[in-house]
Amino acid sequence: MRVKLTVAYDGTDYCGWQIQPNGNTVQQELMNAVADLFGEEISVPGASRTDAGVHAHGNVCCIDVDTKMDPGKIAFALNRRLPEDIVVTESVLVPDGENGFHPRYGAHRKAYEYRIWNMPHPDPILRRYTLHHHHHLDEALMDHGGQYLVGEHDFTSFASVKSQTDSFVRTIYALSVTRSESGLVTIHVEGNGFLYNMVRIIAGTLIMVGDGRMKPEEIKDILGALDREKAGPTAPPQGLHLLWIDYD
Amino acid sequence: MRVKLTVAYDGTDYCGWQIQPNGNTVQQELMNAVADLFGEEISVPGASRTDAGVHAHGNVCCIDVDTKMDPGKIAFALNRRLPEDIVVTESVLVPDGENGFHPRYGAHRKAYEYRIWNMPHPDPILRRYTLHHHHHLDEALMDHGGQYLVGEHDFTSFASVKSQTDSFVRTIYALSVTRSESGLVTIHVEGNGFLYNMVRIIAGTLIMVGDGRMKPEEIKDILGALDREKAGPTAPPQGLHLLWIDYD
Repeated sequence: MRVKLTVAYDGTDYCGWQIQPNGNTVQQELMNAVADLFGEEISVPGASRTDAGVHAHGNVCCIDVDTKMDPGKIAFALNRRLPEDIVVTESVLVPDGENGFHPRYGAHRKAYEYRIWNMPHPDPILRRYTLHHHHHLDEALMDHGGQYLVGEHDFTSFASVKSQTDSFVRTIYALSVTRSESGLVTIHVEGNGFLYNMVRIIAGTLIMVGDGRMKPEEIKDILGALDREKAGPTAPPQGLHLLWIDYD
Repeated sequence: MRVKLTVAYDGTDYCGWQIQPNGNTVQQELMNAVADLFGEEISVPGASRTDAGVHAHGNVCCIDVDTKMDPGKIAFALNRRLPEDIVVTESVLVPDGENGFHPRYGAHRKAYEYRIWNMPHPDPILRRYTLHHHHHLDEALMDHGGQYLVGEHDFTSFASVKSQTDSFVRTIYALSVTRSESGLVTIHVEGNGFLYNMVRIIAGTLIMVGDGRMKPEEIKDILGALDREKAGPTAPPQGLHLLWIDYD
């Protein structure tokens, strides 16, 4: 049977999702836990290959296993075998076979947040999960700039030059920038898929809008230029959170 | 001049606030940073001696220093000398001398929160800052039970037997229990002062109300019994957050 696993993790101490020859990864820890539970090596294909230091509240992967265990109980059994910074929050039975559930190809909507602690001094409790930016950010300007990104566009300007993809066209369904009373500025973005470093480059660019180094309208020109050099820097990983992935 | 310092910290890696012969403490780190900045040993009396593992968003202490430095800049200078899990969020000039500002005696209202992650599985990102309780909590029952604690009472039943105090009478001005959409249950309590372990014993008792092991009305009887044995267990430190301290 095929079981879909929803996975949350604190990415601080990992070299990202994907298995690497050197360095500890989330996928490797999951494979180890799965192997310990079922007594065999089983691959754990994932939906989003998050980078080193990036957090996830609901990344998705799946396993094909031959077991009589109640699918819903697999999450509990895996959590007893995982380090405390990785948690399987749900395990459910999904269709298997070639036309069955696939974590990557079946995903039709993903949500990310980029979180910025925007106060003069850092916050010790949020330090691992936010970027500290001490210049005041105007979240209304950032939100305005972000609206130019909503829709179907070629996002070449907002993708790492290291991107390996056939097409740079993606659709952003919604983007909003809000500020909490305490001083946390959150960029929330939903789309059908994201290019390598895309949310972090959007964040780095909107931060320039927020602190006055760029006008909101310039986002439109950057998008049209199809040139990574025109956009802002790639914001650091610890502010990025993969929230959820939605399937058909 | 006397300077009031507001201090935030992630208490995970500290043996609490107060200087100890063995073990790293927040007060010791502050004393080291102050000594490095001003070139002399200066005591750093604090308002709340938080326990090991307890977090603070706004604990308060003060220093008497002879300097021409702008008081507001002292926070920035200290933060450059502090580890990243301790941050001075504000430094302001206050009246000095015998009748001047005192972090402990001048405090007239304090706010604490006890945060509980109330979902079947733990949350890896909140794990250092919440208690995980997997049995469902009824926050309305907890809030109901908590109302019996509001007002001026003898809180002997809700104080550690190790408390060293002349009087167990304290006033709770407000107590509320709320649940976020994501599953975080927060006990918010404000009072004129709190006995040793008082908020953690209140939390441990209200959790029993929330998961059905105790009726809300029993809180009234526990309070009247003046007996620590009647209340629930002391909830673990990582869920406790000192939010702020208000002065006359």
